[in-house]
Amino acid sequence: MSEFRKDIVTEQWVIIASERGKRPSDYSVIIEKNKQKVCPFCTGFENLTPAPVYTINIPGSNSWQVRVVPNKYPALQEIGDSAILKEGFYHFMQGSGKHEVIIETGKHSERMVDFSKEHLENVLRAYKDRHIELQRHKNLKYILIFKNHGREAGATIEHSHSQLIATPIVPISVKNKVLGAERFFNKQKKCVFCEILASELEEEKRVILENDEFVSYAPYASRVPFEICIMPKKHQDDYSLIDESQIVKLADILKQTLVYFDNALNYPPFNLILHTAPLHENSAGYYHWHIEIMPKLTTLAGFELGSGFFINPTPPEEAAHFLRKKAV
Amino acid sequence: MSEFRKDIVTEQWVIIASERGKRPSDYSVIIEKNKQKVCPFCTGFENLTPAPVYTINIPGSNSWQVRVVPNKYPALQEIGDSAILKEGFYHFMQGSGKHEVIIETGKHSERMVDFSKEHLENVLRAYKDRHIELQRHKNLKYILIFKNHGREAGATIEHSHSQLIATPIVPISVKNKVLGAERFFNKQKKCVFCEILASELEEEKRVILENDEFVSYAPYASRVPFEICIMPKKHQDDYSLIDESQIVKLADILKQTLVYFDNALNYPPFNLILHTAPLHENSAGYYHWHIEIMPKLTTLAGFELGSGFFINPTPPEEAAHFLRKKAV
Repeated sequence: MSEFRKDIVTEQWVIIASERGKRPSDYSVIIEKNKQKVCPFCTGFENLTPAPVYTINIPGSNSWQVRVVPNKYPALQEIGDSAILKEGFYHFMQGSGKHEVIIETGKHSERMVDFSKEHLENVLRAYKDRHIELQRHKNLKYILIFKNHGREAGATIEHSHSQLIATPIVPISVKNKVLGAERFFNKQKKCVFCEILASELEEEKRVILENDEFVSYAPYASRVPFEICIMPKKHQDDYSLIDESQIVKLADILKQTLVYFDNALNYPPFNLILHTAPLHENSAGYYHWHIEIMPKLTTLAGFELGSGFFINPTPPEEAAHFLRKKAV
Repeated sequence: MSEFRKDIVTEQWVIIASERGKRPSDYSVIIEKNKQKVCPFCTGFENLTPAPVYTINIPGSNSWQVRVVPNKYPALQEIGDSAILKEGFYHFMQGSGKHEVIIETGKHSERMVDFSKEHLENVLRAYKDRHIELQRHKNLKYILIFKNHGREAGATIEHSHSQLIATPIVPISVKNKVLGAERFFNKQKKCVFCEILASELEEEKRVILENDEFVSYAPYASRVPFEICIMPKKHQDDYSLIDESQIVKLADILKQTLVYFDNALNYPPFNLILHTAPLHENSAGYYHWHIEIMPKLTTLAGFELGSGFFINPTPPEEAAHFLRKKAV
């Protein structure tokens, strides 16, 4: 059973996921686990994963293009009780929630940047539909969709996929963001993200791409080199509210952003994170969903771990300029 | 010039360290930079570093054993003004502070675990003396000493060293810890760290080592596999208050802990962080300094970045048991 444990000082929750099967002796020699010959995410090996909870077929075909399955080694188990319990001095909670894998393609070596726009739209539709499906569970408080590309960014399976983890607590980073947005709204009666967009479009120097519905830019306080934010122009707190015309434009700007990455940085390892509103809270006035892409070009080390500061050696203005210059 | 930039939503500060000389084009091919033949930290190559600000010699010799020098590529420059300035919509601050390197040995391949206890004591004395020296600067708010061992843990130079970064703001992670300790103290009139120690010593299952002055244990909410905390038994908020008899006992337990790491995990990459009290604040009643060691056996990925949760696949009870079993 995995469980949530609370740090008594910082009140940070940690997931102790014994389920994931790492015994202490596994670490002594770090084994390259990706050498397996059969990939469970490839077309033809569907029997190696749990049964899918969602599928989109290739247009005009019986074969799937995007497939969502429960994670075989979940960080959290099926939805259950989430009461806070005591263990002596400490607090914990059963690790209930959802952990799903969004298999983005049946082809092993096809990267997200290689997907056609129509294909990428289907991945974005899968993100939306899983949100809508899981929002109904009253004891889930947050749905986090993310993608790890490359081993350095934490991908243990090379085949292109995203993950969905739904938790019975609003994660601390999400809470901080929502609180920050609320604070700004209470003072200025405006959405802070809408204001950021207006300011970035006016200043231009950190903007990378823009279309009718979206802007991609390098945030002012970028934590890592080439951090990118993709933000909808329309004020919308929850990703599941995205409409069909936005999906088409999001696929477009995401694909182009990844092409820039490929041209400028040789498609580096990266983490993509979909930041949407917490469930069952009324943040519609002041929260605004967005996608963050964080390339893994530097290593988080003792200073970052001990301080919570990030040290970013590349100013975002330079990163944005460099990406635009490499556009082909 | 490096600078601090504030994220307008989360209020997190980021250090944009253009000084460190990473141009955008540096990332396209990630170069193995450690192949340099001459190591600036080795005995005989002292002219390759800035002049030392502190030295301890090998007992009975004219050669240095521990040497502290300003970082040649500092994340922060010399102490200066730290007023918060505005750039359009955003806030920033000049990146003033201190960035020093504690060269722990003159021998290139000697690891911290290989140091004699007397040698390790001198490293710990250097930590103390640099604290005392820098505490006098009124515009420094925090002194963070940390060590990155191994490339995966962020070490860019293989030769054994620690770093000191002193900042004009109390880092967010430190602030959270201090606030948590204050909250507990206000409720219970006790130091939360003293209570944790008492509880761990009673429960035993997470304790790894103990001597007259210190306990090393695997924290209940360990964020990573084999996370270790070394805590003084004596209530003491500030590391610079450590006395000579404690230094001897700290060298002892730290050396033994590293030997356990070597036996059980083949001396993995790790980050060591010295958590001491903020400067010029009165946290003596409720804060309690300690050392954290976090081996780098897993990769922080999209979930951790997006949520602030850590997923730890190895329960600390198992980790502690495994380390004790491997003691020789």
